[in-house]
Amino acid sequence: MEHPDLPLLALTQGDPAGIGPEVIARLYREARHELDGCFVAGSPNVIRRALGFVAPGARHDDAAVVEITSPAQALQVAAPAIPVLPTGAAAGLPVIGRVDAAAGRMAADAVRWAARAALCGEIAGVVTAPLHKESLAAAGEPFPGHTELLQAEAALHLGRPLDEVPVRMMLANDELRTVLLSIHVSLRDALAAVTPANLAGTLSITHHALLPLLGRAPRIAVAGLNPHAGEGGLFGQEEIEVIAPAVVAARLAGFDAHGPFAPDTVFMRARRGEFDVVIAMYHDQGLIPVKYLGVEHGVNVTLGLPLVRTSPDHGTAFDIAGTGRADPASMLAAVRMARRLAARS
Amino acid sequence: MEHPDLPLLALTQGDPAGIGPEVIARLYREARHELDGCFVAGSPNVIRRALGFVAPGARHDDAAVVEITSPAQALQVAAPAIPVLPTGAAAGLPVIGRVDAAAGRMAADAVRWAARAALCGEIAGVVTAPLHKESLAAAGEPFPGHTELLQAEAALHLGRPLDEVPVRMMLANDELRTVLLSIHVSLRDALAAVTPANLAGTLSITHHALLPLLGRAPRIAVAGLNPHAGEGGLFGQEEIEVIAPAVVAARLAGFDAHGPFAPDTVFMRARRGEFDVVIAMYHDQGLIPVKYLGVEHGVNVTLGLPLVRTSPDHGTAFDIAGTGRADPASMLAAVRMARRLAARS
Repeated sequence: MEHPDLPLLALTQGDPAGIGPEVIARLYREARHELDGCFVAGSPNVIRRALGFVAPGARHDDAAVVEITSPAQALQVAAPAIPVLPTGAAAGLPVIGRVDAAAGRMAADAVRWAARAALCGEIAGVVTAPLHKESLAAAGEPFPGHTELLQAEAALHLGRPLDEVPVRMMLANDELRTVLLSIHVSLRDALAAVTPANLAGTLSITHHALLPLLGRAPRIAVAGLNPHAGEGGLFGQEEIEVIAPAVVAARLAGFDAHGPFAPDTVFMRARRGEFDVVIAMYHDQGLIPVKYLGVEHGVNVTLGLPLVRTSPDHGTAFDIAGTGRADPASMLAAVRMARRLAARS
Repeated sequence: MEHPDLPLLALTQGDPAGIGPEVIARLYREARHELDGCFVAGSPNVIRRALGFVAPGARHDDAAVVEITSPAQALQVAAPAIPVLPTGAAAGLPVIGRVDAAAGRMAADAVRWAARAALCGEIAGVVTAPLHKESLAAAGEPFPGHTELLQAEAALHLGRPLDEVPVRMMLANDELRTVLLSIHVSLRDALAAVTPANLAGTLSITHHALLPLLGRAPRIAVAGLNPHAGEGGLFGQEEIEVIAPAVVAARLAGFDAHGPFAPDTVFMRARRGEFDVVIAMYHDQGLIPVKYLGVEHGVNVTLGLPLVRTSPDHGTAFDIAGTGRADPASMLAAVRMARRLAARS
């Protein structure tokens, strides 16, 4: 092939009742040239059906989807065919837009297969289409989502307890990267998660994850928790007692860390190029600016894992699944990001 | 004059040690055509000095600043001269970039004069250049900022106790309007401010303030407090217990209110035109998106007062005061917003 050392990337199909498969199918139709070295981990029948959603008029014969048995075979599949590596037992096609244990099973099988392939070096990274939490639970999976499943697989692979494989979520688009101190907890609980240990871990994971990507120490901005970063203690003590000392410690460790900064301008400053990444003190502090210009180009990156994993910044969107209307832009951005991370890690 | 019914707007000079006066002077030089009906409330000498900062090479004779004794005279002052209505005893020029009781006194005098002129209908609105909190305190003013001073003047004028003149801050730019449930308190205290009474008051003030501006009931989006607006109670109860009931009550009162919505996408949705305004549950939730694209065009509007008051979305910037470099864009946006509000209220 033209690029013999092209990194191999698995695109996991996501929940087959959601928009994941059709987003992937649309990407193969509309941006095939961006997908060299990529293949779908999932079910050939699911992808075949998705092709029908995306181009209802076109004729999709069996050759439209090519089953492969090893990742490297993806490089031999000529456009416009889609290489699919089956990752579970053959199963019926789940109904679109419905919570379903069988759909959750197919989705989890694809992710687990891809995680293991990445951990043992068979592939360079994983781009995950969205799961549906309830279907996953219905399938008996003990993990609420990708991150926890991947974390467990990594811990198993490394032979370490789960809490020694800490991960953080980074959201990125073309303009801004933000790493979140906490994710799916109430704002009240997020306040309690602003601790020295959590901040130290987040700073370390952020530094070490972005170092290879940028080829230099990332310029890390740490947001404050309170308005105006507390205005010298007037509106809260967390900046003085927890955040500023963590930034000082990070600098002593050799990280290019700065802050705490007023939350209402630090993202704008990063967007203008002053910093490479902003550590956000809670979910919405980081996600409001990342999504403000549109969710189409957001990419979710799991930092801290011994594998490259990115995903689009949207869910299964059951309400529009099967219509072929779902926008593949975020999935494409996730593929590009995975490629950059895989090339440099 | 050409526009005999042009609304008269007072531009208060702000702290004379900060960038306020030079921002106003620059506006008069660069956008004179936008300032018909406007005049400066403050000190002629301060504005004369500011002109020197803005155009150091140009010759500024006494005619560059014209003292007026009543607002209506502003209409008789021909460009490029700047009409200034003296609002305090003549005083020396405060040193630039320094906290100073005399500067705080001059700044407060201008605001108080303008508030009274607006309350008695002599002018149509007030655009306030930034104050410096410490200078204001040094001058013996009991108010931390504009809002509290204006609120006190309004209460006095109306003969009501202060707590019967509730105000809210709205931040607006060309794309987004947001009204804040709380302002300068810690995030922990902001959580405690998410109460039925505060929400009901904020919804009512927002509805009644935007109704004349838009000529119809504003489409109000109420943000959630927690990630994903609590995900059905999974990450916090405030949406279920406090916010959703307040939205229902607002709809029963005839307001076009919606929500609570996931905070990380509601601002993007409003930016795209789905809503006219977003009620934010805390300071940074609303200010991060308003400032994300740049602070240059943000305008601060005080809602709930019986007068029109807008201000630029920046402070006194002592670090660049006196250099003439301060950007007048936000002040200009504040003038335009005041004109729209004055025309329709």
